[in-house]
Amino acid sequence: MTTQQLVSEIRKKKSFLCIGLDVDLDKIPAHLLQKEDPIFAFNKAIIDATHHLCVAYKPNTAFYEAYGIKGWKSLERTINYLNEKHPEIFTIADAKRGDIGNTSTMYAKAFFEDLAFDSVTVAPYMGKDSVEPFLAFEDKHTIMLALTSNQGAFDFQTQTVDGKELYKQVIETSKSWKNSQNLMYVVGATKAEYLADIRKFIPESFLLVPGVGAQGGSLEEVCKYGMTDTIGLLINSSRGIIYASNENNFAEAAASKARELQQQMETILK
Amino acid sequence: MTTQQLVSEIRKKKSFLCIGLDVDLDKIPAHLLQKEDPIFAFNKAIIDATHHLCVAYKPNTAFYEAYGIKGWKSLERTINYLNEKHPEIFTIADAKRGDIGNTSTMYAKAFFEDLAFDSVTVAPYMGKDSVEPFLAFEDKHTIMLALTSNQGAFDFQTQTVDGKELYKQVIETSKSWKNSQNLMYVVGATKAEYLADIRKFIPESFLLVPGVGAQGGSLEEVCKYGMTDTIGLLINSSRGIIYASNENNFAEAAASKARELQQQMETILK
Repeated sequence: MTTQQLVSEIRKKKSFLCIGLDVDLDKIPAHLLQKEDPIFAFNKAIIDATHHLCVAYKPNTAFYEAYGIKGWKSLERTINYLNEKHPEIFTIADAKRGDIGNTSTMYAKAFFEDLAFDSVTVAPYMGKDSVEPFLAFEDKHTIMLALTSNQGAFDFQTQTVDGKELYKQVIETSKSWKNSQNLMYVVGATKAEYLADIRKFIPESFLLVPGVGAQGGSLEEVCKYGMTDTIGLLINSSRGIIYASNENNFAEAAASKARELQQQMETILK
Repeated sequence: MTTQQLVSEIRKKKSFLCIGLDVDLDKIPAHLLQKEDPIFAFNKAIIDATHHLCVAYKPNTAFYEAYGIKGWKSLERTINYLNEKHPEIFTIADAKRGDIGNTSTMYAKAFFEDLAFDSVTVAPYMGKDSVEPFLAFEDKHTIMLALTSNQGAFDFQTQTVDGKELYKQVIETSKSWKNSQNLMYVVGATKAEYLADIRKFIPESFLLVPGVGAQGGSLEEVCKYGMTDTIGLLINSSRGIIYASNENNFAEAAASKARELQQQMETILK
């Protein structure tokens, strides 16, 4: 999917919401555990109830790998369902991968070809030759960690490197990499005031923003500092939406939470 | 496996060699492609031929994920084979994971419980709360990227943060994390001269050292600067061993390359 197609979907749906599909078997409604593939059954119900309210879904691979081959099958069923039923949806494999060149190419193949995601998240620590292999894939997007929403972000990301915080160094350096137009960045909503500064470096790039809701970030603040003429934001919510209820009505409850966010977004887009 | 058990195996085998099982279907002998699970067939032959010459195996998850569910099955068969046949071998899931707290716990479960590896590699960019969940597992080891063997290591890892290179900052900071005694570190052989400095911060921790051979690092240099009273080194070789031949004799050729390294190690250990 191209960035233009994503922007056009955002305008059509009046939403820049991404729903995180981080499925924990300990948290989903008990009746689903009888199903052959409880994780996919849960995801399918959530997708069916919310796809008109969001523009992206983001399964975090950890929650699938934790269940081994069964989990990987659930991930494959989920992405196949999305690609078949809702090809207009932007899909994100939240995998935070990164390795030396040839190995990163194997990861890129795993997520862009075998699973056919539109995008994958990557970690920057190993530098240029660990990220460029992902950037080589046409119409695929590589979403690099810049400033994350957790407390540990202050351990290294905000440390000063050559007079500039590491996360800014990461963003600025990455702009010189081959096919850097295929980069998006993760910037946590819990640090919304940093967004104004970040926009000086990357005035147009899309940002994937976790941390609204459960982690305490504010949607209004993020949009105030981070929104561009072509939106430039995907706001992720995971637990706040998918675990709104663990009763039979879980999918409706999730849709209701998603609609709340979508309506706030619609107001902001006006 | 405890660190003491690992050291004792090293002394017994006179080897601190780790063999990287990075299996690319384009590079293995053609006759194996007829097998039901060519990747596992390849790994099994390599393990059968080399297990007495090394103390660790390190499958890189990228090479398994690239083949989807089939690949994940090959990985599961490989680790199960190792744990059943050679419980004395130290196993490393080279996964370079890392995410916010609860998500890192899911990754830890994937590699320490579902697949029962002894250790997993992690990336430090997200800081303390992304790594501590791995450290909470008893008798399991978390191998954190410090200074990697690729060119991109110079993009951020060697940049100066508060008067100290980032990789040193990463090592020093990590020592204060809960259960930091379960940490090991990745330090590339291509930067052997950095090891003397690194040993000032972590005089005893085990280092996993990639980059000997194919990437140009020198075994002697690494040992000169990095070896401790309890060895403290695992030297990894992947392509140089497993792709020594792609003919019928590939396993014997791999054993021959592994023996060369083991014998150099035996000399150094004297």
